Amino acid sequence: MPLNPLRTVAELKELRAFTADENGAQRVAFTPLWVETRVWLRNKFAGLPVETHVDEAGNLWTTLRGESEKSLLIGGHLDSVPNGGWLDGCLNVLAGVEILRRINAQYQGRPPVTVRVVDWADEEGARFGKSLFGSSACSGSLNMDEARALRDKQGIPLPEALKNVGVDFECVKDSSKELKNAAAYIELHIEQGPVLLDLDLPLGTVLGTFGVERHAFTFRGQAAHSGSTPMNRRKDAFLAAAKMGAEIYRITDKHGGVCTIGSCTTKPGIVTSVVEECRITLDQRHLDSKALAGMWADAQTAAQRFAAEGGVTVTHERLWHIEPRPFHPALMDFCDEAITEAGAPKKRLPSGPLHDAAETCGAGVPTVMMFVQSLHGISHNKIEDTKEEHLEQCVVAFDKLAEKTIHWIARGGNGAKT
Amino acid sequence: MPLNPLRTVAELKELRAFTADENGAQRVAFTPLWVETRVWLRNKFAGLPVETHVDEAGNLWTTLRGESEKSLLIGGHLDSVPNGGWLDGCLNVLAGVEILRRINAQYQGRPPVTVRVVDWADEEGARFGKSLFGSSACSGSLNMDEARALRDKQGIPLPEALKNVGVDFECVKDSSKELKNAAAYIELHIEQGPVLLDLDLPLGTVLGTFGVERHAFTFRGQAAHSGSTPMNRRKDAFLAAAKMGAEIYRITDKHGGVCTIGSCTTKPGIVTSVVEECRITLDQRHLDSKALAGMWADAQTAAQRFAAEGGVTVTHERLWHIEPRPFHPALMDFCDEAITEAGAPKKRLPSGPLHDAAETCGAGVPTVMMFVQSLHGISHNKIEDTKEEHLEQCVVAFDKLAEKTIHWIARGGNGAKT
Repeated sequence: MPLNPLRTVAELKELRAFTADENGAQRVAFTPLWVETRVWLRNKFAGLPVETHVDEAGNLWTTLRGESEKSLLIGGHLDSVPNGGWLDGCLNVLAGVEILRRINAQYQGRPPVTVRVVDWADEEGARFGKSLFGSSACSGSLNMDEARALRDKQGIPLPEALKNVGVDFECVKDSSKELKNAAAYIELHIEQGPVLLDLDLPLGTVLGTFGVERHAFTFRGQAAHSGSTPMNRRKDAFLAAAKMGAEIYRITDKHGGVCTIGSCTTKPGIVTSVVEECRITLDQRHLDSKALAGMWADAQTAAQRFAAEGGVTVTHERLWHIEPRPFHPALMDFCDEAITEAGAPKKRLPSGPLHDAAETCGAGVPTVMMFVQSLHGISHNKIEDTKEEHLEQCVVAFDKLAEKTIHWIARGGNGAKT
Repeated sequence: MPLNPLRTVAELKELRAFTADENGAQRVAFTPLWVETRVWLRNKFAGLPVETHVDEAGNLWTTLRGESEKSLLIGGHLDSVPNGGWLDGCLNVLAGVEILRRINAQYQGRPPVTVRVVDWADEEGARFGKSLFGSSACSGSLNMDEARALRDKQGIPLPEALKNVGVDFECVKDSSKELKNAAAYIELHIEQGPVLLDLDLPLGTVLGTFGVERHAFTFRGQAAHSGSTPMNRRKDAFLAAAKMGAEIYRITDKHGGVCTIGSCTTKPGIVTSVVEECRITLDQRHLDSKALAGMWADAQTAAQRFAAEGGVTVTHERLWHIEPRPFHPALMDFCDEAITEAGAPKKRLPSGPLHDAAETCGAGVPTVMMFVQSLHGISHNKIEDTKEEHLEQCVVAFDKLAEKTIHWIARGGNGAKT
């Protein structure tokens, strides 16, 4: 049975038909529809000599045993955000299913190394605000105390929601045993940004996932009457904070990467008062950890300068942080080759959003991702889409990457866990 | 009975003792404590040959009839914001009481012109968000449809609250008859700003109240993922709006006056998304209507430019508007003279905040205000304060202004309604 990319496209449409409504995909993790989606997925493996189980963190593993215990992992996630796109996460999983079929057929059920498809649990974090749940439990990076305290909008704690789908929160890190023989992890994903679209390229090799520095700045001045306070007597917290709006573009001009001020709030926040307190959030991302540190240092310096210029004070708090995850050089080379062999120009680009691949990479598993063009340069939206010819092409290229990686592992790989 | 400024200070303290708590003055209009305060005020006129009544808008008028029906009005307001200062509004009224005592004594109950002290109802607008209620009803400028729809935080409509204190909302403009013989209006007030404090001056003649242009700008761009969206592909509504922060200081450098951005809100307002929609409020004030128009034109031009630079759109809505109210030249001269005769240097300054005097001025009554220094340059706050020596000095100066104005009216005045 040769690789059949058209079948992957058909299965994606089949999935959409029963998991999307007029607002988009509704496969939110730990909901009944998500559970149903996984039953559907298990049926896709019917007829293959595979073993399937759910680990302690709720990740669904399907294993085709090979000559070696050393494993190639192919990952993705069936869960979506509410009103999500039809490709984000599930393209990865269904391409993995098709590749497993091809490998099983080519090697008569016994490939040189073990091949496993993993459907990570709750990549999106849509309900509890914590993304990469299943993969971070498996990699060991999950902060148990923080996760234990998470609640959804109805006030239901994460541990209780997990219990309802048969997961014991206190044991989720036992899932780390799944990575014991992991020799490589590969993941295909829709880009979620406009880089490939702007370059008119179907496919790209991902350099790694950006490191993230996420902070809030709070500028504090003095409330004062908008009519009676001369301009030179003001301690205007908004004036200082607002200067950061253009400054972050100067920071990315210097360092590369991306910076975003996503939220600005003002107190007292009334039309007749100078702003006493202004809080902005700043999200900074870069593939290089030194550059990321430089971006954050420059933001602090600028905030202090703007505060001093306006006679106000500024403090900051770290909201979140993750190191950059540069992918494996040999696997990136294979990915370039696979893209070329699939008839597309090669192109390397970083990933701004995080993916489960960041967790396997952080756990020391050689990792690479392949991106396929996103038509509107957009994701987490019902209009998310990719041309069907690109979907077919990405399955072909991703299969070639899988095959190259299998042979690399069989030859001893590099940094493979034994 | 000569003028006794010490008595005014004592009466202010007496008022504070029963209307303030540890958070400041609590004389919010139409509350039981405000009603009680007015009973206390009426008792202060005991023994004087005056007539006292409440008009259709809830304003309390105390009249000492003179040889002429032409009237000098001395105004103020006993109502305060919640947690207000001890001088804002009531200094005006109690200085008026003391001056009425002096005039009565000096002219044996029959001054050359009629003298009236008015305690305006709900100057602050603390409960319904509409300031100058009583004076705007009396002047005729009150928008009845807007006012009819006002509700407090409990959802109680303004007409219902008025009914509870015996005022029929539909008749409030009948109070305009009170201005029939008004030949001049004078008002003393704590500055509420730091201008006199910075100059170390006790008193000032007010040039008029600023005109106000109050608008909201809404910048609209596109929400986009903070990680996957290159900087040059963003339509960042915050970037454009934030540039207005410094721009308003350039506008006042050019035109004078004051500009305030008091509120900034962002949508979706989350740390991981470029801002799609950013709304800022802009309050602009100037004593000169042409300059005010120029300030608003410049703000629009800048907003359009910043929007175009960032590939976003901008719209605006007018929240409120009032014309500048320049005070009467002859009365300003008298005010300067009165200040000088009271032993202080003369100084003219505009009023950023509005006062009831803006309404009498708008109604065509020759009007002037006198300011006394505010110790912290602050008002609407329990720390609002003025040195006692300045309180005494302002009563002396204000009394001289009243006397000069009486004689001016008796001589025929200028623009007096007959």
